[in-house]
Amino acid sequence: MPGFELTPVGTVESTLTDQAVAPRQGDEGAPSAWLIFFPAYAEALTDIAPGTTILLLTWLDRADRTVLRVHPRDDRARPLTGVFSTRSADRPNPIGLHRVEVLSVDGPRLRVSGLEALDGTPVLDVKPVLEPTGQR
Amino acid sequence: MPGFELTPVGTVESTLTDQAVAPRQGDEGAPSAWLIFFPAYAEALTDIAPGTTILLLTWLDRADRTVLRVHPRDDRARPLTGVFSTRSADRPNPIGLHRVEVLSVDGPRLRVSGLEALDGTPVLDVKPVLEPTGQR
Repeated sequence: MPGFELTPVGTVESTLTDQAVAPRQGDEGAPSAWLIFFPAYAEALTDIAPGTTILLLTWLDRADRTVLRVHPRDDRARPLTGVFSTRSADRPNPIGLHRVEVLSVDGPRLRVSGLEALDGTPVLDVKPVLEPTGQR
Repeated sequence: MPGFELTPVGTVESTLTDQAVAPRQGDEGAPSAWLIFFPAYAEALTDIAPGTTILLLTWLDRADRTVLRVHPRDDRARPLTGVFSTRSADRPNPIGLHRVEVLSVDGPRLRVSGLEALDGTPVLDVKPVLEPTGQR
């Protein structure tokens, strides 16, 4: 089966630059960050308002795509586990999935809370949270 | 910014073949389906057990990637809305996100409940559900 080409729609601007010290999850003390969207995609953003909780999809560009099993949270005391049962960034398609709150909107820039993605991480998509609403 | 290449890790085997009549969301009467993983990725699957709820990421290969605004649910009475505020398949990076339950595991095949993805849809990733557990 052939591969598919992702097109980044923006980028993360964050104070987090060092993977070794970054929080592993957004709810573990991750800072607020900016999402800077490229002008070509501004129209897709127009209905996002402050206070909204969104799902952010990113491309974890520093991941090792050859990894299929990991010790969860790099804890050697925990047994090797298939990456599909973990949130490891190292996986065949390193798509980051982040549930964050929109703090403010400044044109094609969104300020979001609690994002563990590193500075420069490409943004792929934004979706409403997965609730069984039948509305979206 | 350059693009990134996704590598499908498997494919959806479903009775749904016609987008025009398929449910829009998994909780709107979507059928159970098989996820058939390619042998190279079997090791990543080994810890997934029946009864687990997972997040499935797919590549919605029949989507229109040029669309930035839609009438939600194709309802012309609803105003045009930026796709990042909707679950439209048509969007710059058509990554499908599905919350499904694993019904059974048969080697590199998972039977899952309530999947609205069409037959032949490429599978990109499987993740644990987004809960603030600090465990995964």
